[in-house]
Amino acid sequence: MTNYLLPKILHGADYNYEQWLDYPEVHNEDFELMKKANCNVMSIGIFSWSKLEPKEGEFDFDWLDKLMDRLHENGLKAILATPTGSKPVWMSKKYPEVCRVDVNGKREPHGTRHNHCRTSPKFREKSVIINNLLANRYKNHPALLMWHVSNEYNSCECYCNHCISAFRDWLRKRYVSIENLNKAWWTTFWSHTFSDWDEIDPVDKSVHGLMIDWQRFTSDQTLDFFLTESAPLRNITPQIPITTNFMKPDVGLDYWAFAPYVDIISWDSYPTWHREEKNWEEAVKTGFYHDLFRSMKEKPFMLMESSPNVTNWQGVSIPKRDNMHLLSSLQAIAHGSDTVQYFQWRQSRGGEEKFHGAVVTHGGTENGRVFKGVKQVGEALNKINSVCGSSSRTEVAIMYDFQNEWAIAHSQFARNEEKNYQKTCISHYESFWKMGIGCDIKDFSCKDLTKYKIVVAPMVYMVRDGIDEVFKEFVKKGGILVITYLSGYVDESDLCFLGGSPGPLKELLGITVEDSEILNDFNKQSLIWNGENYNTSHFSERVHLTTAKVIAKFGDGVLNELPGITENEYGLGKTFFIASRNDQNLTDLFYGKLCNKNKLPEGISIVERFSGENRYIFVMNFNSESTEVNLEIDGLSELLTEKKEKNKITLEPFGVRVFKQ
Amino acid sequence: MTNYLLPKILHGADYNYEQWLDYPEVHNEDFELMKKANCNVMSIGIFSWSKLEPKEGEFDFDWLDKLMDRLHENGLKAILATPTGSKPVWMSKKYPEVCRVDVNGKREPHGTRHNHCRTSPKFREKSVIINNLLANRYKNHPALLMWHVSNEYNSCECYCNHCISAFRDWLRKRYVSIENLNKAWWTTFWSHTFSDWDEIDPVDKSVHGLMIDWQRFTSDQTLDFFLTESAPLRNITPQIPITTNFMKPDVGLDYWAFAPYVDIISWDSYPTWHREEKNWEEAVKTGFYHDLFRSMKEKPFMLMESSPNVTNWQGVSIPKRDNMHLLSSLQAIAHGSDTVQYFQWRQSRGGEEKFHGAVVTHGGTENGRVFKGVKQVGEALNKINSVCGSSSRTEVAIMYDFQNEWAIAHSQFARNEEKNYQKTCISHYESFWKMGIGCDIKDFSCKDLTKYKIVVAPMVYMVRDGIDEVFKEFVKKGGILVITYLSGYVDESDLCFLGGSPGPLKELLGITVEDSEILNDFNKQSLIWNGENYNTSHFSERVHLTTAKVIAKFGDGVLNELPGITENEYGLGKTFFIASRNDQNLTDLFYGKLCNKNKLPEGISIVERFSGENRYIFVMNFNSESTEVNLEIDGLSELLTEKKEKNKITLEPFGVRVFKQ
Amino acid sequence: MTNYLLPKILHGADYNYEQWLDYPEVHNEDFELMKKANCNVMSIGIFSWSKLEPKEGEFDFDWLDKLMDRLHENGLKAILATPTGSKPVWMSKKYPEVCRVDVNGKREPHGTRHNHCRTSPKFREKSVIINNLLANRYKNHPALLMWHVSNEYNSCECYCNHCISAFRDWLRKRYVSIENLNKAWWTTFWSHTFSDWDEIDPVDKSVHGLMIDWQRFTSDQTLDFFLTESAPLRNITPQIPITTNFMKPDVGLDYWAFAPYVDIISWDSYPTWHREEKNWEEAVKTGFYHDLFRSMKEKPFMLMESSPNVTNWQGVSIPKRDNMHLLSSLQAIAHGSDTVQYFQWRQSRGGEEKFHGAVVTHGGTENGRVFKGVKQVGEALNKINSVCGSSSRTEVAIMYDFQNEWAIAHSQFARNEEKNYQKTCISHYESFWKMGIGCDIKDFSCKDLTKYKIVVAPMVYMVRDGIDEVFKEFVKKGGILVITYLSGYVDESDLCFLGGSPGPLKELLGITVEDSEILNDFNKQSLIWNGENYNTSHFSERVHLTTAKVIAKFGDGVLNELPGITENEYGLGKTFFIASRNDQNLTDLFYGKLCNKNKLPEGISIVERFSGENRYIFVMNFNSESTEVNLEIDGLSELLTEKKEKNKITLEPFGVRVFKQ
Repeated sequence: MTNYLLPKILHGADYNYEQWLDYPEVHNEDFELMKKANCNVMSIGIFSWSKLEPKEGEFDFDWLDKLMDRLHENGLKAILATPTGSKPVWMSKKYPEVCRVDVNGKREPHGTRHNHCRTSPKFREKSVIINNLLANRYKNHPALLMWHVSNEYNSCECYCNHCISAFRDWLRKRYVSIENLNKAWWTTFWSHTFSDWDEIDPVDKSVHGLMIDWQRFTSDQTLDFFLTESAPLRNITPQIPITTNFMKPDVGLDYWAFAPYVDIISWDSYPTWHREEKNWEEAVKTGFYHDLFRSMKEKPFMLMESSPNVTNWQGVSIPKRDNMHLLSSLQAIAHGSDTVQYFQWRQSRGGEEKFHGAVVTHGGTENGRVFKGVKQVGEALNKINSVCGSSSRTEVAIMYDFQNEWAIAHSQFARNEEKNYQKTCISHYESFWKMGIGCDIKDFSCKDLTKYKIVVAPMVYMVRDGIDEVFKEFVKKGGILVITYLSGYVDESDLCFLGGSPGPLKELLGITVEDSEILNDFNKQSLIWNGENYNTSHFSERVHLTTAKVIAKFGDGVLNELPGITENEYGLGKTFFIASRNDQNLTDLFYGKLCNKNKLPEGISIVERFSGENRYIFVMNFNSESTEVNLEIDGLSELLTEKKEKNKITLEPFGVRVFKQ
Repeated sequence: MTNYLLPKILHGADYNYEQWLDYPEVHNEDFELMKKANCNVMSIGIFSWSKLEPKEGEFDFDWLDKLMDRLHENGLKAILATPTGSKPVWMSKKYPEVCRVDVNGKREPHGTRHNHCRTSPKFREKSVIINNLLANRYKNHPALLMWHVSNEYNSCECYCNHCISAFRDWLRKRYVSIENLNKAWWTTFWSHTFSDWDEIDPVDKSVHGLMIDWQRFTSDQTLDFFLTESAPLRNITPQIPITTNFMKPDVGLDYWAFAPYVDIISWDSYPTWHREEKNWEEAVKTGFYHDLFRSMKEKPFMLMESSPNVTNWQGVSIPKRDNMHLLSSLQAIAHGSDTVQYFQWRQSRGGEEKFHGAVVTHGGTENGRVFKGVKQVGEALNKINSVCGSSSRTEVAIMYDFQNEWAIAHSQFARNEEKNYQKTCISHYESFWKMGIGCDIKDFSCKDLTKYKIVVAPMVYMVRDGIDEVFKEFVKKGGILVITYLSGYVDESDLCFLGGSPGPLKELLGITVEDSEILNDFNKQSLIWNGENYNTSHFSERVHLTTAKVIAKFGDGVLNELPGITENEYGLGKTFFIASRNDQNLTDLFYGKLCNKNKLPEGISIVERFSGENRYIFVMNFNSESTEVNLEIDGLSELLTEKKEKNKITLEPFGVRVFKQ
Repeated sequence: MTNYLLPKILHGADYNYEQWLDYPEVHNEDFELMKKANCNVMSIGIFSWSKLEPKEGEFDFDWLDKLMDRLHENGLKAILATPTGSKPVWMSKKYPEVCRVDVNGKREPHGTRHNHCRTSPKFREKSVIINNLLANRYKNHPALLMWHVSNEYNSCECYCNHCISAFRDWLRKRYVSIENLNKAWWTTFWSHTFSDWDEIDPVDKSVHGLMIDWQRFTSDQTLDFFLTESAPLRNITPQIPITTNFMKPDVGLDYWAFAPYVDIISWDSYPTWHREEKNWEEAVKTGFYHDLFRSMKEKPFMLMESSPNVTNWQGVSIPKRDNMHLLSSLQAIAHGSDTVQYFQWRQSRGGEEKFHGAVVTHGGTENGRVFKGVKQVGEALNKINSVCGSSSRTEVAIMYDFQNEWAIAHSQFARNEEKNYQKTCISHYESFWKMGIGCDIKDFSCKDLTKYKIVVAPMVYMVRDGIDEVFKEFVKKGGILVITYLSGYVDESDLCFLGGSPGPLKELLGITVEDSEILNDFNKQSLIWNGENYNTSHFSERVHLTTAKVIAKFGDGVLNELPGITENEYGLGKTFFIASRNDQNLTDLFYGKLCNKNKLPEGISIVERFSGENRYIFVMNFNSESTEVNLEIDGLSELLTEKKEKNKITLEPFGVRVFKQ
């Protein structure tokens, strides 16, 4: 299989054709407008179960046949969804077991979406039946490009007997004996010792080992459901790639465990542009997410959903201004997406999402601002189709681990406000973003980091799955590893390391940590770098040296004169330990020195993709003002404008350029 | 029937005589003090069910007989309540069906008040029995002035089987077929299609059509309960007027639907005076509410409850200062009330409301500040009895619609913070208040607006019940209609208009709306009026002209140079469209120009009532400082002080004057 | 029995030996470190039920035998806990009745701790069995110093049928007839009259009399459970003292009712040091709590738990800085504790509290900051062992009543924000703290106050249990009584006094109160004292004089010129009434004048203990800066440093000195 689906960038949207069966004129208009918008793909069938199976066992594919044919006739491809994102009302009424049970033991009524029990045998049976029918019916249809399995799986919990029983089985597999489980969960605390598997109940929210395992089980069980409902697709259409659309992390699913089982990673990206004066901070976060999803398979991913304008589920969603729609679409491409897709093609007439942004608004003409913006993106994509399948080449990895995030969220520290694990990972990523240095994002299931030069691992609270050994191997072979406070606290069962933190990372870092120092506004503390003092906040640690040396000291506060940043030689490489949460300026300076590189002008992002000899340089301005950038591009052609550019270019507000070398 | 109950203004209170049956000395003191306070009416029997029927089928009217007689002996009239506001404990225990079921399916335990199931056959049966007995017993009693049915009906929901079944019947009547319902509710969205009426469950909070219909049903069912429990009163005492006390809008009941079935509108007004530096803003809001309730029947209404001092259910309730009690009481009269009544006569010894303000405090003497204030009001009312039955004469109507408010509340927009429908209606009303121009408040069930010169309709999100045709007829015949952003979005099923907003109002307004522009603090935008820039906020719209002309443009921001206010000729009249939420100063200037009138001094309100040749001019100062006003009243007598006044008068802090012409 | 347990101050911690049965090397290290830390006692067995009785009726005391022996061998004493703080999982599963039922009728699942049903016959039976076995097994063990019954009883409610039935019995005893109950609860209000005991249901949260009685019942039932589970200990080991550890007031238990049944008061103190710039404000509050627990038996108490470093259940917990650990430990001693004990000895490896501060951290060495601090406290305590059993001698009592606090919390006033009863009591206490004047804290069950010179009683809302007569007797005999606004409102059933406030205190105070004046930021009011104006806030009252005279007037606002502070001669003594919540400066000035004494330097606390001829003077600096103090100690020896001191000493930041005279 090549690195891409089609030899061009996909451009399309969720198309809810079935909502408009009474409006043939709307269908006609849709296909006219799709051409005008330069679309080549539509995601269809999401939430269509009650149309496909209006009564139990009575199926109606007629409308879907027509839709598939019409897409094909119009030169569009179909990303065909399985309909399990929302179950029909008749199913909830006849088989209550398909509805989840909440933490209070209450069976949820029919309503909303994305809320089936993952374990329910009946729901699995019904899902397999419908998916089988879909796969058999369309296996040879020329429009069928790809499977879109269900929609935005979540981790909302179900406490029904099926799920609790499956959880106990999952635990039996993991721990073999109840004694092992008691030890791993430290159940002597508060007298929670179990004498039988059947005593274990996930509603007990006071055993941290249980809590993290329940969250792992929920993620695993969701994956298991995905595999169950995908089996007919794999069997009947082995040639058709499968994806399921992920969401903004962290929703409580360990997407890394899903990655091997999907052919292409796809995700739904809904940044909140224009909410803050510094729009580029949202761009940093969005870039981090794109890079995370690209890194999962180290292959191009799909931007499966995005809004061409606003969302309707936030307190305030500002319409995309000026060139923002093009800019944000190309940002996804720059970070490795080979698609730009929207939710949704046309605004619904009714229901909760009728005012969500869409390509075609209720006004429905091609002359509107939003439609024109989409059309413009389509034209732009046509000019850069050659990036398809290209990849990044980066020497830096940022470690960001879902299970670590869950464990940090559960744990009760001296400071429970602003734990901010993900935010901290992004703040380290930000320093590289500002220098135009690409990063991969990796998690602790990673088995080899040796292809990187620099690995940054903030707040490695839970050392799981041998990541300590992977770190050692990496440094031994010459890598540079940066680790921070709150690292090496617990093992994969959330049990503290005897001997204290940083646990199994002590030798690697050449330090021991005596205890945490917690700060609030009345407890100032600073770190000295190059003679200047920089504020630290929230968390810091009292560090003692074993083999490391100090490269920055605290400048006041209770840690005055104690080590703030340490450096340790290890094998052919070295490690750094950062003992406090530092001012962003200091973080930038630290990585600037490490990489020996300067920052780009504020708000400017430069991201590259590579393909054989080719190099694509995306230059993006996330400022609402024109901004000048110096580049080494003398004589290169710019793909969008096809102009030759000099080394100094000026980007208009929210402007973007793509150079090919 | 005349326009009034008695040829004088009613002055009285809720009197909970039955709480003091063990304290005859308190009863004696009460009747002494009622005279001193210049009271002529008492509301009695509210919440007295457990005294009237202490055990099932065992009735005790003895105490009520005595109370009725004693009122009569003392020259007081009775507003006699049906006791359904609170059910006896024995009833909840024996017939659990009388208690509501919450959204989680849990039957509510006995407790608090106002929480019976509206549909329960048993509760209806018991209510009819007790009301029959009351009507028969007192039908000829000379003290009986009026019926006070139940107390403060609310819209808190009941999800019992009786209610759900009644809801399905209500839907059957509305939609006839399940297909119609599916179309109206756009149930294809998220696969919520119903194949049977019995599948419909109001706990599903993801179908907007269902949600608005459930709210309508709840309101209708409350009215139905009211009609059921009132039937014995209508039958047995056809000559005795009936009311039920409404509350501050919007509590979720469509009071307009109740209005035809009560003889007199009454409501309970609890403004929060002295909470903000600009007390007059509270006066504007209170004036709006008074005008709303007056407009329902275009007849004098009753101020059924108000506090002579504080409330006890707010975070902070400031005691009425200085002349505020007289001022706020006469404000109600000015806007059309023919009564000033209090909750309550005497503070209870125990229970949740024992510290609520009352005419007689626990200290219980006539020398207190509060009692003196009440007495002063009684004296003042005696001087202006001639206003009884008089009405307003206004040429302006503000449209404020409950169902529209509910629909806006449910809907998910790009901006969900500060939707502020009611507040926006009041901000337009405020401009007229400041000029001393009286307004009626009308809702979308109104069938004729042609008696007005100006109609103002902010945020007509849901165009229901033919209001678009009423608007057209009004303008055709020469009216001036002002409409704002967020208008013409959906029909009565909350389905968006095909072709976009303002839907069926396009021709009338001579514009189309392309989409919404949402603002937050970082996204400034202004409108230019007369060369000056005025801020806009929260919501605005991108408007295109068809037949309208621009009378004000946006001055910066993304809508720069686009239409901000448009004007369109239509028939003999014209329409204005205001595309953004504007600074109050600009709203004032707009209506000032439209009416060609100046503002009164800040904090001054002038309101008039008319009766034949007579005109009553209420001049009110809501400032805590003395304020000077210019009036055309040379030589008129003032009713309260009986002094002749010149055209320039000075009102003391919170002062009030009533002139008769 | 002497006034103390051992002729030395106890120093120790909760020791969870049973969590480490798999780690014999940890046990060995523990006993080494206990010696080094100068510990002489350990609290053991808390939460150990599942270790003691791993299956129903199968007991294992082996590990506890070993622990007891080892403590003895190492010269340590045991404070042995009954294990009822947390029930084993098997018990919840086999006997669901041991789990509480929440207010919605839902049986709580097994989880957390401290959540057994107090009434459950099965839980009582199981508790008595295990406690019997413990008492019999260890009755003659030389290590057994004391019983620690259960752990931190709370008042979280249980609505199971056993509890509701017990509540009805409790009510029958209190009211004898349902008529009496109806009158006491004023049930005519909102028609809540009961005709049968079985109709009474504590889920009804709208009857204030019921609510306060339900809270009293919950407290009484907890005491009843305590007595039940303690009976075997009393019977089998009558010579061994019993305590149960109280918590920071107010947790909803009336600890005064418990006091007669424990031999020594103990409590768990967790101040939040370093959270605010003025650390000494936390010291005032902590001093108040210590004094409260000392006052309960007017004997030395035990500091049963405290953290040697941080907690882990707050948003932010700052590690103890500098000398704070010694200072806060000696503050407890100064106020009457004869122990300094910690939660806990060693940080757990797992579970919710694994990051709570402990003497031995996960790092586990004796060289850490925290361990050294504990060791330092141990050394200091050894130098002041002679204070053991000594007591305070004070002439001032502050009245602070739990039931009054509950009643104020339930009541609905004109102002419901910042009622702040406890905070107000502490603000009056603060004035004495600043002058170095010791106070007892007493509640309204107190029968004699005549040993005091000054009694301060803020916000005596509920006059219960004859406290009005105790006040009168006290003043008659020459005492000075200070009472404030919000006093004399209701009797013990929460029924307002007829005739208004201050009810039965009118004659004593020589005033009547007409009504409350409520203030917010827009309603300024001040009191004039010595020609200066001081702000008042939140609450004030309109006072009329009968026999009292005015000593301070209001200086502006609606109460301008009315009495602000009054003084009344009564018998040989006199009373003061303070009509408003005043600026702390004014409160300080008032008590300064009353006591004719100056304030100490800011942040300095001086507290004394007496024993025969001996006087111990604790001088404490709660500032983070060095502070100078003038003392009359010329030539006295200081116990910690053994230096002779002059009258002027300088304390280092968070410094402490103990002088013996």
